[in-house]
Amino acid sequence: MTTKGSNSGKVRVGVVGVGIGRLHLEGYQKHPDAEIVALADVNEERARQTAKEFNVPQIFADYEKMLKEADLDAISVCTPNSLHAPVAIAAFQAGCHVICEKPIATSAKEGEKMVEAARAAGKIFMMAFNNRFRGDTQVLKKFIDDGVLGDIYYAKTGWLRRRGIPGIGGWFTTKAMSGGGPLIDLGVHVLDLALHLMGNPKPVSAYGSTYAEFGPKMPGGDKYDVEDLASGLIKFQNGATVLVEASWASNIAQETAGLDVHQCPNQARASGAQLSVVA
Amino acid sequence: MTTKGSNSGKVRVGVVGVGIGRLHLEGYQKHPDAEIVALADVNEERARQTAKEFNVPQIFADYEKMLKEADLDAISVCTPNSLHAPVAIAAFQAGCHVICEKPIATSAKEGEKMVEAARAAGKIFMMAFNNRFRGDTQVLKKFIDDGVLGDIYYAKTGWLRRRGIPGIGGWFTTKAMSGGGPLIDLGVHVLDLALHLMGNPKPVSAYGSTYAEFGPKMPGGDKYDVEDLASGLIKFQNGATVLVEASWASNIAQETAGLDVHQCPNQARASGAQLSVVA
Amino acid sequence: MTTKGSNSGKVRVGVVGVGIGRLHLEGYQKHPDAEIVALADVNEERARQTAKEFNVPQIFADYEKMLKEADLDAISVCTPNSLHAPVAIAAFQAGCHVICEKPIATSAKEGEKMVEAARAAGKIFMMAFNNRFRGDTQVLKKFIDDGVLGDIYYAKTGWLRRRGIPGIGGWFTTKAMSGGGPLIDLGVHVLDLALHLMGNPKPVSAYGSTYAEFGPKMPGGDKYDVEDLASGLIKFQNGATVLVEASWASNIAQETAGLDVHQCPNQARASGAQLSVVA
Amino acid sequence: MTTKGSNSGKVRVGVVGVGIGRLHLEGYQKHPDAEIVALADVNEERARQTAKEFNVPQIFADYEKMLKEADLDAISVCTPNSLHAPVAIAAFQAGCHVICEKPIATSAKEGEKMVEAARAAGKIFMMAFNNRFRGDTQVLKKFIDDGVLGDIYYAKTGWLRRRGIPGIGGWFTTKAMSGGGPLIDLGVHVLDLALHLMGNPKPVSAYGSTYAEFGPKMPGGDKYDVEDLASGLIKFQNGATVLVEASWASNIAQETAGLDVHQCPNQARASGAQLSVVA
Amino acid sequence: MTTKGSNSGKVRVGVVGVGIGRLHLEGYQKHPDAEIVALADVNEERARQTAKEFNVPQIFADYEKMLKEADLDAISVCTPNSLHAPVAIAAFQAGCHVICEKPIATSAKEGEKMVEAARAAGKIFMMAFNNRFRGDTQVLKKFIDDGVLGDIYYAKTGWLRRRGIPGIGGWFTTKAMSGGGPLIDLGVHVLDLALHLMGNPKPVSAYGSTYAEFGPKMPGGDKYDVEDLASGLIKFQNGATVLVEASWASNIAQETAGLDVHQCPNQARASGAQLSVVA
Amino acid sequence: MTTKGSNSGKVRVGVVGVGIGRLHLEGYQKHPDAEIVALADVNEERARQTAKEFNVPQIFADYEKMLKEADLDAISVCTPNSLHAPVAIAAFQAGCHVICEKPIATSAKEGEKMVEAARAAGKIFMMAFNNRFRGDTQVLKKFIDDGVLGDIYYAKTGWLRRRGIPGIGGWFTTKAMSGGGPLIDLGVHVLDLALHLMGNPKPVSAYGSTYAEFGPKMPGGDKYDVEDLASGLIKFQNGATVLVEASWASNIAQETAGLDVHQCPNQARASGAQLSVVA
Repeated sequence: MTTKGSNSGKVRVGVVGVGIGRLHLEGYQKHPDAEIVALADVNEERARQTAKEFNVPQIFADYEKMLKEADLDAISVCTPNSLHAPVAIAAFQAGCHVICEKPIATSAKEGEKMVEAARAAGKIFMMAFNNRFRGDTQVLKKFIDDGVLGDIYYAKTGWLRRRGIPGIGGWFTTKAMSGGGPLIDLGVHVLDLALHLMGNPKPVSAYGSTYAEFGPKMPGGDKYDVEDLASGLIKFQNGATVLVEASWASNIAQETAGLDVHQCPNQARASGAQLSVVA
Repeated sequence: MTTKGSNSGKVRVGVVGVGIGRLHLEGYQKHPDAEIVALADVNEERARQTAKEFNVPQIFADYEKMLKEADLDAISVCTPNSLHAPVAIAAFQAGCHVICEKPIATSAKEGEKMVEAARAAGKIFMMAFNNRFRGDTQVLKKFIDDGVLGDIYYAKTGWLRRRGIPGIGGWFTTKAMSGGGPLIDLGVHVLDLALHLMGNPKPVSAYGSTYAEFGPKMPGGDKYDVEDLASGLIKFQNGATVLVEASWASNIAQETAGLDVHQCPNQARASGAQLSVVA
Repeated sequence: MTTKGSNSGKVRVGVVGVGIGRLHLEGYQKHPDAEIVALADVNEERARQTAKEFNVPQIFADYEKMLKEADLDAISVCTPNSLHAPVAIAAFQAGCHVICEKPIATSAKEGEKMVEAARAAGKIFMMAFNNRFRGDTQVLKKFIDDGVLGDIYYAKTGWLRRRGIPGIGGWFTTKAMSGGGPLIDLGVHVLDLALHLMGNPKPVSAYGSTYAEFGPKMPGGDKYDVEDLASGLIKFQNGATVLVEASWASNIAQETAGLDVHQCPNQARASGAQLSVVA
Repeated sequence: MTTKGSNSGKVRVGVVGVGIGRLHLEGYQKHPDAEIVALADVNEERARQTAKEFNVPQIFADYEKMLKEADLDAISVCTPNSLHAPVAIAAFQAGCHVICEKPIATSAKEGEKMVEAARAAGKIFMMAFNNRFRGDTQVLKKFIDDGVLGDIYYAKTGWLRRRGIPGIGGWFTTKAMSGGGPLIDLGVHVLDLALHLMGNPKPVSAYGSTYAEFGPKMPGGDKYDVEDLASGLIKFQNGATVLVEASWASNIAQETAGLDVHQCPNQARASGAQLSVVA
Repeated sequence: MTTKGSNSGKVRVGVVGVGIGRLHLEGYQKHPDAEIVALADVNEERARQTAKEFNVPQIFADYEKMLKEADLDAISVCTPNSLHAPVAIAAFQAGCHVICEKPIATSAKEGEKMVEAARAAGKIFMMAFNNRFRGDTQVLKKFIDDGVLGDIYYAKTGWLRRRGIPGIGGWFTTKAMSGGGPLIDLGVHVLDLALHLMGNPKPVSAYGSTYAEFGPKMPGGDKYDVEDLASGLIKFQNGATVLVEASWASNIAQETAGLDVHQCPNQARASGAQLSVVA
Repeated sequence: MTTKGSNSGKVRVGVVGVGIGRLHLEGYQKHPDAEIVALADVNEERARQTAKEFNVPQIFADYEKMLKEADLDAISVCTPNSLHAPVAIAAFQAGCHVICEKPIATSAKEGEKMVEAARAAGKIFMMAFNNRFRGDTQVLKKFIDDGVLGDIYYAKTGWLRRRGIPGIGGWFTTKAMSGGGPLIDLGVHVLDLALHLMGNPKPVSAYGSTYAEFGPKMPGGDKYDVEDLASGLIKFQNGATVLVEASWASNIAQETAGLDVHQCPNQARASGAQLSVVA
């Protein structure tokens, strides 16, 4: 990655949105090649406190102003989902690389425009799919790529919470801002991981159901307009099938998240630091 | 159930096929109202030994002869799947009640003919879905019917074996005789249970995949022509969805079988003698 | 519940004692129909800090003054056990509904007087038995009431801590103030739950033992004059029996709390969010 | 133990009753100092087959004849419970040592007469309480006797089966022959163990309940006249208390048997080969 | 492998010793390219019964006669350890390939002579180290060879039984016939596996202890002259270290066998069908 | 222990080094016979804050000044390992008793000098081996000393962390200050415990390996010059052997620490509050 002209030789980064954006600031702070230059948030008070905590020299209420004035090499897009596309596209047009929180956008069309904008600008566009970088999934990826485990023909993946609707009444549960519920909030993580391990096969059809059983019945749930459970199967051109389940609220004993990939002759299950291979 | 005219006042039963039929014989033997009168099997030696073991007075190589001569009230159909329809239909026409091993037949069409034959004869037709009679599933059924658990909107059910292809090279793995692989061998048990608990909702669509990864590669697998793993989703008129998985061979650590039914506000998991309800 | 005449239309509540009383304040704060009007505690500094934290407009060192001046609809009694009776009776006489922390009082006689005072005043008297409102116990209660599980003939219930004597040297371990040890501190919770599930059968006899093995040997234990382990059986008019165990200190690997209710043909165990039914 | 004059120098043993008596024969066979001389059983066919299997030279249908003719040093009493007293007393009078299966007899009075007969004859009388000889319980006994664990003030012991009524309709479930149900069949084992470990304290009172919920409802249960669940507390002169539970049939997930002895400062749990001490 | 001239085109095999040799016969029976031609055992009765069970046409009391007369391509050496060397060497000299049970011999010197004899004869010499062929260890070997897991610098391997001294008083516990105790009986399996996975590094030194604590104290233990527990460390030229433990008798809760191989950045544990990789 | 002349009659203690020294301060604060008089730390700011938190009247940057001026009865040595010897020796010479953090010193020679200095001064020298004082290990020690468990012939002890290199780049990972890695940081705890339980047998030889696989590859690891994994066997004059493993970084699923002592006829495992004895 080339940087714009920082005296420090470091990548000059900015963060838009300081909710989940805090985790990006923590990561940049630890990285020897990153320099946090600016942050933007419509909540100025929150912006100010966060800037103080992380020693960020400039704060902006308006991300467009930040893109114009802060001389950035790259930004993190950490806004509500409906702003991912406009912020990222503006950043590409301002000559920035972009790390964008998941999901990419609230529609496939928006997502495609973001990719086009990145290509037109010749800039890097990275989705924040951190599960690809866990120790166990990296080892599993190598095992699969080395051909020891055999081809994946069926994968089961899911992330199911017991009581975990995020901020009921807030942007997460308002479709106009979020674009959807747990499927694009949690499901994208595990689905991305499955696709990554399978070598990104091309999907040919999908089938599934969504339910909103808990959210609308909870206090503040009258405006809840996304699903709280989704389950679906996806078939791929190479013959493989993936089951994906995602839930913010289910009467399960405890939260579960994981990935089973079925191969012949071997099969693997990744969950946290430990990888099991059954042969 | 009325009986034909047995002096003993007991139901006079016959068994066709003494493979899985042994379990039917064991059951009849313990039942105070049943009298085992005859058995039929194309393998006469096996028929003779089984008859000796269970003190069965008459044996037949030909089930039609048995139906004609043995003066039976009821029979158990325990043949390879492709014979379920002809044997059961002949039995109804001979005035017998029928308990038939699962799956009902090798095609839906055959199954419908069997039901018609039962109706025409005014005889009882019962499928051998024993899991409905387990303690835990009976309690669960009552809880659901009493309305305490809420409506089932999503159910996950499956039966997955590690290394359990039955009789490779035999009738189980030959589609012309079996009609299919683990989906109709194991999957019917758990799918029937789910439908039973849900009150038999009407299916409106289904989607799924089958794979034959293990069977064809095993010794004797060259004629293996059924699946060894199946996974599918079924949607119902009442809005509910069911996931069903069935496998004879998967690289899992150990065999699993069970049923999760999702309701709001409560949810239940049945497996063996113990029923868990998460509230 | 009718309220006295609050402008807000909410129930005007006060809390006496801000130790365990904090949890009552947290609960009232979340409830849309409650308005916290006042709190009373003999420790004025603690009262002041708590009032600030929960935005309570009035504080009193003397609960009688609070009852006279604060125009309350209801109070929570969260004092040491020996004050439950005088505070609750004063509150009823002042025209308040009362939620009282467990145990009801330090003697059965006091408890009866409290109930009489509530009746005389025509006010609601509720004991703070929160375990009745857990998801698993509410489901279990419905299952029992629906008759699916059968009658309870034997119940085993207990709450056993490893190292959990509360405030050694304080009021909990001083009989004059507490009225007793773990049996009325922890045991009442699980015993109440058992009785509630059984439909409050009438006890006819009881038998048991108490021990003080740990408390007196610990630093500050010279004035310890309650039990630290209690175990007993109670027989009821309907023929049922309940085992109850309660301990603040036992050399067990970890704390356990739960309830097993034995019925024929089924049996249930409730512990936390998960309910097991063995059939 | 002195022996009567066997040429082999071994103890000449006989066994009365070859049901559980088989286990005694197996034990004698392995012991270098025992010589199996005779067995007696009212079922002559069973006696003959057992004698053949264990190379026993003499068989008798009548135990009194055996005592007179077989020149025995010792016998095992393995009959239904109601015969323990007459057989053992006859054996003592014939000059034999006696190992008697549990329970000692069908009443305390009979038991006392057996002890008197043993004393009068100067012979050894041993109850078959094999759990005292398990590795874990022997170690625990030594730990207790050495004083490391402290005095036992509360012990919980029990043996609970899921579906384990022995021979419904047979002598076990007929009070006239058995003297009682699981309390004296299973409970005596664990109660004996507790008393043994506690140093045989003197009981001063007891309280408990018994239930027959499963047995009478099972096939063949119309003559079932013993309990199937018993639970009780016993208080001892030294201040200690013991809880004992015994069941042949309970809706528990699986059979449990064990012993917890509570001491201060330490506490132990014995179950099978492994002993846990919590300090 | 070339075969001598069998008409069937199959490998003509013989088995010497029908104790553990039974398992070899079972394996040969299932293999399409093997023909069991003869077996030899000094116990003629046992030889005869085994030959009948496996349809083996020729039996010999003397293995040398078998080697001369049976026209074999290969033999399994399944004798007591002290005969491994003479039988295998005679077989090589008779032009046979050899599969030999572990351990190779009762001394390193004998083992070297066996290898020399195999080389001189140009025949295959295979040790029966079946654990190399388990699914999990084969996958692990591939992962290691592919370089994904990193180099093994420390491996811990062992096989520890609770109560498992084989045939006390027999050849296993007699050093002149066995050459040693659990270290060469069980330890060779897990040590071989570790060396195999590590790529057979060259050992440079070793250090360890052996104990005979249980064997000599058991009935029949007076002639017990091998160890019952061994523990040692081995250092290799490549800097790696291996810990090996082997026991026939230890007071552990249950038998354990397994292998941990430590690498950086990843580490694997193989035990049975499941392989865990911690990253 | 005699005290110098404190008016309070309490032991006047000082602490040198307020890193791990905090835990010593917490312990002294709770002890009725200790009076914390002074603390010393080269980091004056940290010393000041700690003194304020624990109400320590005097602080010193120089421990020698403290020993001269603070009129102490005893000190805790909580410095980096390389200062254990000089601080402790100075303290003995100043007439103080000493509790020293583990390991004793960075070389055996230094350790011997410390012991000599203690003897010359007639003062108590105690190493901070707190695991000797856990409930489970004290009970185990008594069981061993009472002779119930038999002699220990083999002990396995270890402390293995998953990701636990302390302060990479700090004194722990710099050999000149620490004297070594996890073997003397963690291993000394478990090795001391084993030796204590075994009655301090005299070692006659040792053999082992150390590895630095993780530390040097981590950020800041360029100056890492101690091991991160150590494994060794030690043989003792009484014939016993001890295995000790210690690691700051291994790809294990989770941290483990414990002790197995092998005896005949019994065997014990201590880990945390629970002690298991297998018989």
